[in-house]
Amino acid sequence: MRISDIETPAILIDLDIMERNLARVASYARENALRLRPHTKTHKIPALGRKQIELGAAGLTVAKVGEAEVMLDSGTPDLLVAYPVIGRRKLERLMEVARRTRLTVALDNVICARQLSDAARAAQVNVGVLVECDVGMGRVGVNPGAELIELGKAVANLPRLDLLGIAFYPGHIKMLDEDGLAAIESLSQRVDRTVREFRAAGLNAEIVSGGSTPTLFHSHRVAGLNEIRPGTYIFNDRNTVETGACTLDDCAATILCTVVSTARPQQMILDGGSKTFSSDRLATGEPGFGLIREIPGALFSKMNEEHGYVDLRRAESAAVEVGDRVRVIPNHICVAMNLHEQVYGIRGGEVEQVWRVEARGKLQ
Amino acid sequence: MRISDIETPAILIDLDIMERNLARVASYARENALRLRPHTKTHKIPALGRKQIELGAAGLTVAKVGEAEVMLDSGTPDLLVAYPVIGRRKLERLMEVARRTRLTVALDNVICARQLSDAARAAQVNVGVLVECDVGMGRVGVNPGAELIELGKAVANLPRLDLLGIAFYPGHIKMLDEDGLAAIESLSQRVDRTVREFRAAGLNAEIVSGGSTPTLFHSHRVAGLNEIRPGTYIFNDRNTVETGACTLDDCAATILCTVVSTARPQQMILDGGSKTFSSDRLATGEPGFGLIREIPGALFSKMNEEHGYVDLRRAESAAVEVGDRVRVIPNHICVAMNLHEQVYGIRGGEVEQVWRVEARGKLQ
Repeated sequence: MRISDIETPAILIDLDIMERNLARVASYARENALRLRPHTKTHKIPALGRKQIELGAAGLTVAKVGEAEVMLDSGTPDLLVAYPVIGRRKLERLMEVARRTRLTVALDNVICARQLSDAARAAQVNVGVLVECDVGMGRVGVNPGAELIELGKAVANLPRLDLLGIAFYPGHIKMLDEDGLAAIESLSQRVDRTVREFRAAGLNAEIVSGGSTPTLFHSHRVAGLNEIRPGTYIFNDRNTVETGACTLDDCAATILCTVVSTARPQQMILDGGSKTFSSDRLATGEPGFGLIREIPGALFSKMNEEHGYVDLRRAESAAVEVGDRVRVIPNHICVAMNLHEQVYGIRGGEVEQVWRVEARGKLQ
Repeated sequence: MRISDIETPAILIDLDIMERNLARVASYARENALRLRPHTKTHKIPALGRKQIELGAAGLTVAKVGEAEVMLDSGTPDLLVAYPVIGRRKLERLMEVARRTRLTVALDNVICARQLSDAARAAQVNVGVLVECDVGMGRVGVNPGAELIELGKAVANLPRLDLLGIAFYPGHIKMLDEDGLAAIESLSQRVDRTVREFRAAGLNAEIVSGGSTPTLFHSHRVAGLNEIRPGTYIFNDRNTVETGACTLDDCAATILCTVVSTARPQQMILDGGSKTFSSDRLATGEPGFGLIREIPGALFSKMNEEHGYVDLRRAESAAVEVGDRVRVIPNHICVAMNLHEQVYGIRGGEVEQVWRVEARGKLQ
């Protein structure tokens, strides 16, 4: 099968670029003695999880129980659910996962910890726990210091839970400008102090898990950090480029689209809109829902569900025809992957792999 | 099964409200002698398409070939693909659909018309065509007048294509204020003139198909219009409320979420973010990704993929606990439906129906 045989819209994964991305981060982690537990929310494909393990990842990360169930097929020896799991039925399913691989859950409250402990007791399994602290994102996580220590003690005292350490997510650090480096330095001081205090309270912090794709290659500067769980690095996207963590040449994923209308002057309509790309904007706030590789200067200005509006007024060439195909680098590849039933691994014009996005839409 | 047994996040459809919404629009169409061909992109469920047909819809509308294939299961006698279909393989699949129901395609260019004619000849089927004109949306559609007539003539001369009339989409008219009524009046004059000119050129315009959910109940004011194809009216959403086409009590769809963290003061985190709701904002530009029914004053201020941030600073009550459940009216229900594998039809606390969202993610 050749690329020209693929029906659009469709996600293409350039395998050479993907393999280079995987190898680069595997080397970085190895060289800096960082445990790598990639977040699989980006690809949602067990075969790619397996590849990450083969390249030296210690385990895999997921957000939802449904993703954990699917990702077992990767054969991973270790799985982190980096999301609080609430509710009896979900916890029962999670305990089935714990029977099949070493399971760790990140959580930020005692209600969640008690439910997890109850489920683990009923299932007679042990579950690792990372207590989550907020380092500035303002999303989940208790305050470092006393609150974190209190939560750690509660977890350590609950049956069938093994307190393994601390998790945080520095998603607020975007690395868009020089302030990024200052934020990394401040993060480092904060994490270092937090870990010391935690250990001084007699609590286990063998794992200190942080890291996001934007801050990825600065992880060695964060004192005390010993595990990273980046997701997007396998494919990268426009947001990753903006943060300086990669260049456009490192973007492995593009979305192949067909021009379906040129009826309005200096505009073309693509057969991919928010149902294909998601309506995520660039983290910088700049306009554009994707970068059209073939037409420099074209602005992907607007979208409806099935329509991508491309403004050609400043394009180097506006000579497009209905039926033309273009490849678009999306703003945010994780959410786009979630919208596609399958994706195509390509190399040199040929389709080498067709992967079902097995963990797509696993909301629960 | 009761609502309390449903794992979150999950879309709930209040069946009483949905049935009232369906009946209201069916009556409106009947009373105003408007052909109703609902757009099924909102629900994506063949059983609901069947219900629309039973209530008097003349046919159904879809955007993609994959949706057409799924929607055949509704038993509809008539299907409109309101989207240009480009590419040999897709057209072959479309011709299989044409063998099983009366098929019409809306298109705005000759390349598309020729490809459709070629496919119809090869398959030895006839396909109806509506030529699409732009009435101000600036998306697809040629200009009314000479351009539309030229396209109509080209279609009329192509083998196996039956020119049936004109399609347009007044999606630019939001009905957010009094300007809306003026826009309807101007639309009416434009459509009336366009249809007269089209017919005067000897072209068939037995179908003049327009209408969107915001303009829905103003359709009778548009001279010459004889078919409407609203989608969102079956469930409604916050955007529909903003346009005045319904009230909050007419919103049949809510998304059931669980509070998974209250670690940050005056904030709660829901287990639904952009992967559950989509990141669509309100058409008015106002903040908020959904309306929390149980907590007046709560602001659904931000989202990541799996996290919904709810700002409780102005909420009537901020006494929420991890594990609490809330129901959220989404901004845009169509894109949310596309993210869920199944949805729950509820009546009086009980789950009466579980529907698979069969046409979910049909991108091609």
